[in-house]
Amino acid sequence: MRPDHRSNEEMRPVHIERGVAKYAEGSALISLGDTRVLCTATVDEHVPPFLKDSGTGWVTAEYAMLPRSAGERIQRDSVKKGRALEISRLIGRSLRAVVDLELLGERQIIIDCDVLQADGSTRTAAITGSYVALKDAMSRLVRSGVIGREPLLGQCAAVSVGVVQGEIRLDLCYEEDVVADVDMNLVMRSDGMFIEVQCTAEGDAFSREMLQRMLDLGEKGIAKLFDIQRSVLTHE
Amino acid sequence: MRPDHRSNEEMRPVHIERGVAKYAEGSALISLGDTRVLCTATVDEHVPPFLKDSGTGWVTAEYAMLPRSAGERIQRDSVKKGRALEISRLIGRSLRAVVDLELLGERQIIIDCDVLQADGSTRTAAITGSYVALKDAMSRLVRSGVIGREPLLGQCAAVSVGVVQGEIRLDLCYEEDVVADVDMNLVMRSDGMFIEVQCTAEGDAFSREMLQRMLDLGEKGIAKLFDIQRSVLTHE
Amino acid sequence: MRPDHRSNEEMRPVHIERGVAKYAEGSALISLGDTRVLCTATVDEHVPPFLKDSGTGWVTAEYAMLPRSAGERIQRDSVKKGRALEISRLIGRSLRAVVDLELLGERQIIIDCDVLQADGSTRTAAITGSYVALKDAMSRLVRSGVIGREPLLGQCAAVSVGVVQGEIRLDLCYEEDVVADVDMNLVMRSDGMFIEVQCTAEGDAFSREMLQRMLDLGEKGIAKLFDIQRSVLTHE
Amino acid sequence: MRPDHRSNEEMRPVHIERGVAKYAEGSALISLGDTRVLCTATVDEHVPPFLKDSGTGWVTAEYAMLPRSAGERIQRDSVKKGRALEISRLIGRSLRAVVDLELLGERQIIIDCDVLQADGSTRTAAITGSYVALKDAMSRLVRSGVIGREPLLGQCAAVSVGVVQGEIRLDLCYEEDVVADVDMNLVMRSDGMFIEVQCTAEGDAFSREMLQRMLDLGEKGIAKLFDIQRSVLTHE
Amino acid sequence: MRPDHRSNEEMRPVHIERGVAKYAEGSALISLGDTRVLCTATVDEHVPPFLKDSGTGWVTAEYAMLPRSAGERIQRDSVKKGRALEISRLIGRSLRAVVDLELLGERQIIIDCDVLQADGSTRTAAITGSYVALKDAMSRLVRSGVIGREPLLGQCAAVSVGVVQGEIRLDLCYEEDVVADVDMNLVMRSDGMFIEVQCTAEGDAFSREMLQRMLDLGEKGIAKLFDIQRSVLTHE
Amino acid sequence: MRPDHRSNEEMRPVHIERGVAKYAEGSALISLGDTRVLCTATVDEHVPPFLKDSGTGWVTAEYAMLPRSAGERIQRDSVKKGRALEISRLIGRSLRAVVDLELLGERQIIIDCDVLQADGSTRTAAITGSYVALKDAMSRLVRSGVIGREPLLGQCAAVSVGVVQGEIRLDLCYEEDVVADVDMNLVMRSDGMFIEVQCTAEGDAFSREMLQRMLDLGEKGIAKLFDIQRSVLTHE
Repeated sequence: MRPDHRSNEEMRPVHIERGVAKYAEGSALISLGDTRVLCTATVDEHVPPFLKDSGTGWVTAEYAMLPRSAGERIQRDSVKKGRALEISRLIGRSLRAVVDLELLGERQIIIDCDVLQADGSTRTAAITGSYVALKDAMSRLVRSGVIGREPLLGQCAAVSVGVVQGEIRLDLCYEEDVVADVDMNLVMRSDGMFIEVQCTAEGDAFSREMLQRMLDLGEKGIAKLFDIQRSVLTHE
Repeated sequence: MRPDHRSNEEMRPVHIERGVAKYAEGSALISLGDTRVLCTATVDEHVPPFLKDSGTGWVTAEYAMLPRSAGERIQRDSVKKGRALEISRLIGRSLRAVVDLELLGERQIIIDCDVLQADGSTRTAAITGSYVALKDAMSRLVRSGVIGREPLLGQCAAVSVGVVQGEIRLDLCYEEDVVADVDMNLVMRSDGMFIEVQCTAEGDAFSREMLQRMLDLGEKGIAKLFDIQRSVLTHE
Repeated sequence: MRPDHRSNEEMRPVHIERGVAKYAEGSALISLGDTRVLCTATVDEHVPPFLKDSGTGWVTAEYAMLPRSAGERIQRDSVKKGRALEISRLIGRSLRAVVDLELLGERQIIIDCDVLQADGSTRTAAITGSYVALKDAMSRLVRSGVIGREPLLGQCAAVSVGVVQGEIRLDLCYEEDVVADVDMNLVMRSDGMFIEVQCTAEGDAFSREMLQRMLDLGEKGIAKLFDIQRSVLTHE
Repeated sequence: MRPDHRSNEEMRPVHIERGVAKYAEGSALISLGDTRVLCTATVDEHVPPFLKDSGTGWVTAEYAMLPRSAGERIQRDSVKKGRALEISRLIGRSLRAVVDLELLGERQIIIDCDVLQADGSTRTAAITGSYVALKDAMSRLVRSGVIGREPLLGQCAAVSVGVVQGEIRLDLCYEEDVVADVDMNLVMRSDGMFIEVQCTAEGDAFSREMLQRMLDLGEKGIAKLFDIQRSVLTHE
Repeated sequence: MRPDHRSNEEMRPVHIERGVAKYAEGSALISLGDTRVLCTATVDEHVPPFLKDSGTGWVTAEYAMLPRSAGERIQRDSVKKGRALEISRLIGRSLRAVVDLELLGERQIIIDCDVLQADGSTRTAAITGSYVALKDAMSRLVRSGVIGREPLLGQCAAVSVGVVQGEIRLDLCYEEDVVADVDMNLVMRSDGMFIEVQCTAEGDAFSREMLQRMLDLGEKGIAKLFDIQRSVLTHE
Repeated sequence: MRPDHRSNEEMRPVHIERGVAKYAEGSALISLGDTRVLCTATVDEHVPPFLKDSGTGWVTAEYAMLPRSAGERIQRDSVKKGRALEISRLIGRSLRAVVDLELLGERQIIIDCDVLQADGSTRTAAITGSYVALKDAMSRLVRSGVIGREPLLGQCAAVSVGVVQGEIRLDLCYEEDVVADVDMNLVMRSDGMFIEVQCTAEGDAFSREMLQRMLDLGEKGIAKLFDIQRSVLTHE
């Protein structure tokens, strides 16, 4: 039985609150069980050097954990360390896959994902929440007449799936994550296409058949997240 | 008239929520108008090198702003830069002034103050909120039998007072802070003694008589904060 | 047609030379077309702090590119930057999946992968070459009587597969890599189990059916690499 | 009795030597008992980014201690650490309070305060000495015709006052500083206005009445420093 | 007797391979016994700030050792540490002494020397090999019409000479280097002029007569290196 | 004619003041014309890791320039940059050549050389002055009974010699240094043996005959420095 008595196919309760940061162009606070990530979107009229004078925009992300978001205090500035940097890159790449960067024009959206509380699956929660912040920043650009229409190709959401004690489970909490044999992060677009599949043997290697079943379960979870995003975004 | 129509002697609405961080030994989220600071207290069984084998404890603090806590995005890792470092030192020093470090024993309390939203007076809000987190961490040490009684010498709270357009005002918001001629941070103990007086000429120097009036107003504001802290701490 | 006239299912010529570094406990220089990676294995009798006194060992890796391994000169010290750090972590994780860390005992193997020349697929070449260096370091530990038998659970090898202009291709060279819509890195164990699947939408998202075909092609490529590793390792 | 047999209201011997640095636009070596600080002023035709094209100037400061200025050797590069950074900011802020930055024009004066020997009150000595270096740099700008008249609003000087064993004492030496219960740094302008009051409980909190008496004593000490500065500056 | 049975006046076998790096404008792999250094030359159309708009060019160098080039693994990023930085500066200075920087025009040549295997005298091998890489980069600039003729004033080569157990020996290997009493690095130009003499007492000071004999032997060794460079450079 | 009307064989006025730093175990302020270097010696009971439990001591040095020691302001923390690091290493190596490290016992002497004013030849002045600080620190160790006798093998001093406009000159000032074609630093021991010869072509290569004449002149200069050191050290 899972620590919180969920079935293997069940996600934890998801809640997304929009507009939580007064100054940001877009923001969302996502809760996934006890995991809580504050996502903000900043519109920056500068682009990275490699896009200078290209007319094309960019989406980048930074992920960090607050010092006491976890059981043991984490030293600050971890954004530059290995794990946080890798997650930052994943979030940026995932969101770029739903943005028409040419239509965005030569500006960048900076996504900040700050984990207030961490109970597993923080990176997938960050992607799902960031989409909402990104969408609000895009709406604002359209409303203020900076761009003609929202440069979005669809929604973007992510879930974790893992193998724990031989069972495939959706949306691992921290207690499950540390004992998982396989850990998969799946990022999808709302048209059913995949943006990223990262499936890693932590404790033991995995068969191709196992991979298929993990993908099946992940797709189901993400379908629910798209519904939640839509519901949150249709309310003012 | 002040931007939010307060009188010069009026503080913004203050709200302190305890126990907001699942994993921290003590935590508080303080709101002071639109300023919001998440304060956590971590009990660490190590002390800084200079206290090794002294039997004496320590309280230290780190202050940082989330990237989009402000109107312009702030680069991460600012905890090591000048202003944030100076504030971190002030918070630690202020809280140590209400802790009996010998009674605490050879362990340290690490206070983390993360500004979620900044609308002025973040450092004084951080001190006032951190006291609540510190108190809860101390209670937990007593409850778990680590120490016999709470090593606290009183409450600790802080306010800002400033001179704007020749008027002395309590609890400056950001809009006032940037145009203030004088900026004072006052930290007090609940027995009426001062812990720190920092009064700085930003735009113009100030007379000794002005300093007296600023202290008068600051003392009144802090008295209210002590009441709020007590009220929050008596509820479970 | 591919830039070097290969068929889509064809890998570039692979050559692995063992024992190229006089001082290292194990070493291999792998060529994959014009990509050349020097892999060394160092036996270090220390383990990272989290394994201190656990009796269990570790395998870690560092990946870096020489300044003129690429068309544009790369600044040194890039090992700490995002991309190189992410690749370092992948290499370490992949090799740990074929090592019995308890049997290794409380010591670590440090794998260094230095790209002498980069023409695409450097990370997968690094994994394939590093296995050979690791195996030689293990043999040396056995020969010198430090451990009783080689703590290896099988071979480890990796290939890249990509989607370029709608076609699925094995082992992308640099020219293909920069225009690929999808980029997959597949790491496998010689018993047919997967160690890591990383499939990323670079230019466009991908369907689940596309993922299946990419896995099919990747499995074929890796089977050949296992043969080459075995052939290299059976010669003295 | 004080370690050097002074009365509580007595300052240590003060000596300021001008023009000690051949290459600097202004310089002063101040001795305050055994405390010795070398202050130089550099005229820099660049301003910090936030003043670019504003027509307004800036004064900034850096404070550092030579490695063997103290009883225990101090590691270099401490300018970036907490205490030195905080003092650097105080010096810069204090001097800006006596400079008409618009009249200075778009250039900055960089003040370097290097402590050659530290026997307490180094930061207040640095401020008092730096004013002399700053004044000479200003005179030079006028003499060379860069600006029409000296953009100075008055003199600037600083003293420390402390509470040691219940007694209020002027100008603490190191031996007193480490045992002081309260430590105050007072910075004033020669028209009798305050620039900065920093009063900190080190060992014990302090009453408002104590603060008044410390201010009284500090004002007396600073009056003498203004005399010394004037005397030094009237000689060529 | 020397570890490898050479006479005191004998250099180890020298081999220089040109064009080993596909992407570099010039490259050479030099072997000096078991010492192996990969030297590449990059043409960079930017110059350091102090040469901006001067019409004059620059040659700079970076020297680093691969982690397992030596008996004990070396941490990466050592290019910024003392020894590597000093060697980098020596290589750059030595090569600039054979380049007409005005004729080169406002561009810089960046030399990268990466030690693949270190058995003593790596810095002198790096200089000798880098000259070949530099020469090829210069030829390429001429062939492509960027400059009219090669801005070279002669060849540049270097050897080490040492005093071991009272005997003067040419070209120290690592085993000799660690026990040498005196260590000399000599850099010369092919017209017989000296570029750099660095003679250092490691274990014992040395007489002026000893210095003369070391110079005699060094000159003989360098003469041979000039022959080898010429021979390598005349073949296509 | 030289800028200060000296003959080519003449050194600038040298003055060494002992005991200038109240807290250091040894100290000297050396003036060489307008060049002024403060040298302190710190006795540290720790040794670098490679000497742990060896019973053998160490001498190390750090060289830095104060920000306004030169015509243009120098950024702080330059001790870690190339030039300062190289000079630090030279000073440490030179002083170790006159110390019996076994007799010193397992402790280190840290030499700090801070350039207060720089008018050329700062590194040789630093070596000559540091010997005096080192000697005083050694005497103190003997007087306090820590070691039985001074572990010194002789005096150590250094001069610069250069070639300017074809003329060989002793002790270059800054104005000469920047236009010198050849720059030599010579470090000697008082028994006439050489510790270090560094002769570098800055503008033009040099003949062996030129090197001989530079050594002749350097030896004469150093003889005078040994006299000055002896004279300073025999006075209390």
